[in-house]
Amino acid sequence: MASAALICDSEPWKDLKEHVNVIEKKHLRDLMNDVERCQSMMVEIDGILLDYSRQRVRLDTIGKLLKLAEAARLRQKIDMMYNGDHINSTENRSVLHIALRAPRDKVICSDGKNVVPDVWYVLDKIKEFSERVRSGSWVGATGKALKDVVAIGIGGSFLGPLFVHNALQTDPEAADCARGRQLRFLANVDPVDVARNISGLNPETTLVVVVSKTFTTAETMLNARTMREWISSALGTQAVAKHMVAVSTNLTLVEKFGIDPANTFAFWDWVGGRYSVCSAVGVLPLSLQYGFPIVEKFLNGASNIDNHFYSASFERNLPVLLGLLSVWNVTFLGYPARAILPYSQALEKFAPHIQQVSMESNGKGVSIDGIPLPFETGEIDFGEPGTNGQHSFYQLIHQGRVVPCDFIGSIKSQQPIYLKGEVVSNHDELMSNFFAQPDALAYGKSPEQLLQDSVPDHLVPHKLLAIYEHRIAVEGFIWGINSFDQWGVELGKVLASQVRKQLHLSRTKREPVQGFNFSTTTLLTRYLEVEPGTPSDSTMLPRV
Amino acid sequence: MASAALICDSEPWKDLKEHVNVIEKKHLRDLMNDVERCQSMMVEIDGILLDYSRQRVRLDTIGKLLKLAEAARLRQKIDMMYNGDHINSTENRSVLHIALRAPRDKVICSDGKNVVPDVWYVLDKIKEFSERVRSGSWVGATGKALKDVVAIGIGGSFLGPLFVHNALQTDPEAADCARGRQLRFLANVDPVDVARNISGLNPETTLVVVVSKTFTTAETMLNARTMREWISSALGTQAVAKHMVAVSTNLTLVEKFGIDPANTFAFWDWVGGRYSVCSAVGVLPLSLQYGFPIVEKFLNGASNIDNHFYSASFERNLPVLLGLLSVWNVTFLGYPARAILPYSQALEKFAPHIQQVSMESNGKGVSIDGIPLPFETGEIDFGEPGTNGQHSFYQLIHQGRVVPCDFIGSIKSQQPIYLKGEVVSNHDELMSNFFAQPDALAYGKSPEQLLQDSVPDHLVPHKLLAIYEHRIAVEGFIWGINSFDQWGVELGKVLASQVRKQLHLSRTKREPVQGFNFSTTTLLTRYLEVEPGTPSDSTMLPRV
Repeated sequence: MASAALICDSEPWKDLKEHVNVIEKKHLRDLMNDVERCQSMMVEIDGILLDYSRQRVRLDTIGKLLKLAEAARLRQKIDMMYNGDHINSTENRSVLHIALRAPRDKVICSDGKNVVPDVWYVLDKIKEFSERVRSGSWVGATGKALKDVVAIGIGGSFLGPLFVHNALQTDPEAADCARGRQLRFLANVDPVDVARNISGLNPETTLVVVVSKTFTTAETMLNARTMREWISSALGTQAVAKHMVAVSTNLTLVEKFGIDPANTFAFWDWVGGRYSVCSAVGVLPLSLQYGFPIVEKFLNGASNIDNHFYSASFERNLPVLLGLLSVWNVTFLGYPARAILPYSQALEKFAPHIQQVSMESNGKGVSIDGIPLPFETGEIDFGEPGTNGQHSFYQLIHQGRVVPCDFIGSIKSQQPIYLKGEVVSNHDELMSNFFAQPDALAYGKSPEQLLQDSVPDHLVPHKLLAIYEHRIAVEGFIWGINSFDQWGVELGKVLASQVRKQLHLSRTKREPVQGFNFSTTTLLTRYLEVEPGTPSDSTMLPRV
Repeated sequence: MASAALICDSEPWKDLKEHVNVIEKKHLRDLMNDVERCQSMMVEIDGILLDYSRQRVRLDTIGKLLKLAEAARLRQKIDMMYNGDHINSTENRSVLHIALRAPRDKVICSDGKNVVPDVWYVLDKIKEFSERVRSGSWVGATGKALKDVVAIGIGGSFLGPLFVHNALQTDPEAADCARGRQLRFLANVDPVDVARNISGLNPETTLVVVVSKTFTTAETMLNARTMREWISSALGTQAVAKHMVAVSTNLTLVEKFGIDPANTFAFWDWVGGRYSVCSAVGVLPLSLQYGFPIVEKFLNGASNIDNHFYSASFERNLPVLLGLLSVWNVTFLGYPARAILPYSQALEKFAPHIQQVSMESNGKGVSIDGIPLPFETGEIDFGEPGTNGQHSFYQLIHQGRVVPCDFIGSIKSQQPIYLKGEVVSNHDELMSNFFAQPDALAYGKSPEQLLQDSVPDHLVPHKLLAIYEHRIAVEGFIWGINSFDQWGVELGKVLASQVRKQLHLSRTKREPVQGFNFSTTTLLTRYLEVEPGTPSDSTMLPRV
């Protein structure tokens, strides 16, 4: 199969297209009564049990999807990824987030060089630095230990670390390690986000981590300059080097900013932002909050899944099965969305993180060779933790539209509660809903999918993350798109800088709005009519 | 037109169907160059400017949509709603959330009785009670003033109040009134949510508000019993009446629970849960945090929009225009989702709240007369604040699928920041993106819609809420569905109670799992294999 050929021209694709008619005549109720079918649709690996029997598939559907994987050369594409080939072809880069969590003795090469020692050089540096800060041997400008951290970053430099932070927050061991410390995330360039982040913090005891690969991300750098002002206006300019560190590859700009290049933690161009939580982007702030040993467990969990994805046969490969089922739902059955429903408050930020990883990766309408695709790709991902979602958008899923769902539950709770005299414990009550809803959906109307985690030791987030990362890669490999670039967002950046320039000229020199269409011109003019509330000649910081 | 006729059989509907072919040949670029068109697609009322020129519509499309509204008897349906007719016919109830924010002297009748005095009786009671708590004249069991509030509720009793709380949090006036106080929301029955909510709180200084209309909502009541245990195990059983109050209509169950019926705040069966933020559900916890005068402003803002929705001509009626455009996008153009994109961190929880209001209201496939609808209804609503979303799911909107977007921005910031030497202020930087992205989308590929708020006094959330509530009603009125019931979620509740019973029998009497399908039986058995970590004979509370 030539590389520029589209997967929709393959025989397995056409076969699946026809197969849709067969499946559409089957009610899920009947499929669910077939015990043999259901039995073979449960896969357990490493404490995680996947049950996809409520998917609208027969056993032969899976066979046909595996043939599609073959036609799409999925095996070869996974091998190329693990071999460090430049599979992100539009940016001419390897895609090696698996190296970020590889054991010290593993060899993973990019451009002929083993990158694992570089990874561990940075991890060791994080370990050493975070221990100094946590022990109080690194102190701020006034001699006080730094107990609070504000991590500035946006997109992948925000959602991934936030997800893991939320997941660990009430884990008893992690909570013990974090006692007396706070970790906050500043993402939005909205000054309100700055105000909320600094509220209750003291510059004397705060460390700011600036996360930007190029050190040029507009939102992150304005927030970094704002936080620098917050520190230096309280403690003097020389305090900046004691209270700010960076995660970046651009040492020149880091130094120019006032951060000591020695306190800069590197990552690499083979790590995409949305896959960067296992690099210094996530590991540094999380280690400062919880200590490196806790974060190392997280890396190990992800690494296990990396091995599984690489070596398990496709019939029992969680990311492969999940990816193929998504392709089936999105492209063949025509369902545009997917609901991610963790029955776990600790996984509250899982859906927003996966929304970003999935929609930024696969929200593309052209093939990796630049050919417009004649079929639907990319899902709209959304979700809230159960049971909350049940009282929100489940009505639409029950009676409105067909939305494939990922139900995620765990056997044990981080924080078990039982009240004497109650019929069940609080976690059992939560899980009663987890077990009930999929059947309510299956027998009501809609297909769904159930990913039951059965890891007893709270390692859920570690593995889930890697499973979803790889699942998204599988989808892109099948659809034939480049999941690893994101050109679509560039035009917005260019236009934003035109607007910024206009606002500057209008605010300072009263220049009229020009160069925009009627609508934008009118709105901008209306916006500029009102006094901004900020002086244009002297610094003003939030009032909370 | 007979009431059982479907709107899709009307002439205006057929006309719009044909009109789709005309519109699909038009590029948005060309539509945007027509200044006259764009000019008439801006509507400003009461400080809020709506620009819908980037919608995929011509001027005559709007005319056709207004004819559709006529065929759907929209005017009459709005009048019926405001007259207190039982438009929620499946539950035989009026729908009168507009009465919750009506001025004292207004007359709004349900079943022949003016309900406004009842509303104000409760509001006055909330005012009086919240002032007692805030002033310290109401004290807890140990004589200390109550400074922190945990509001227990789920769905509409959670998302609406949370949205408003978030919106007010950094408003300087509201923040001043809230100094030294905390308001938290406990929704999920997951014990982890309890652990997070009580972390750092002292029962001696905490007031718990239990919000449940019937006082039987499973999640809310288990959480209420858990919090009761948290209080009584620290302060004794008699402390409950001092530390817990209720928002409910079921005085018998409230009293049985141990709450003084005198400290119960009523609402009415003509208020749907998802429309209840302006009742005691939202007003009580928000008044405890910010004082009643702040919350009263919120009610006034919503009331202004209620008047606008009732009295403005449809051509200049914000909820009507927005509702018609949604029907156009969803049903005629076939776009299943909508992105809600407030360029405002203070509106962080607007999208989750509207997701609930919209998807629970209109996620239905049968008409109000019980006829299955042969057309698509109900959107999948999702969103995150800009600029965060730009670094997340915008890629898909730019290059993947067509997703109509609501861009929401405000002229002034709650917390202005300016750094000397910067080209623009932080809020101008935020708004540069707000102005740039719609054009990037329009000229790139996708239609969108821009709702620019120009209220200078931070009243944004007040009006936005009512605009969206009414917009959703308009959609339901046009589609001919009952937006005010939610039967779809009932089956899940029934199944959950079967599972709960099974877990109880298996945990206490080792009874085998039975009565479920193969998949659920297998998963439940697997779940029960692991020791739960909670004793079944003595109380256990969280360890954080």
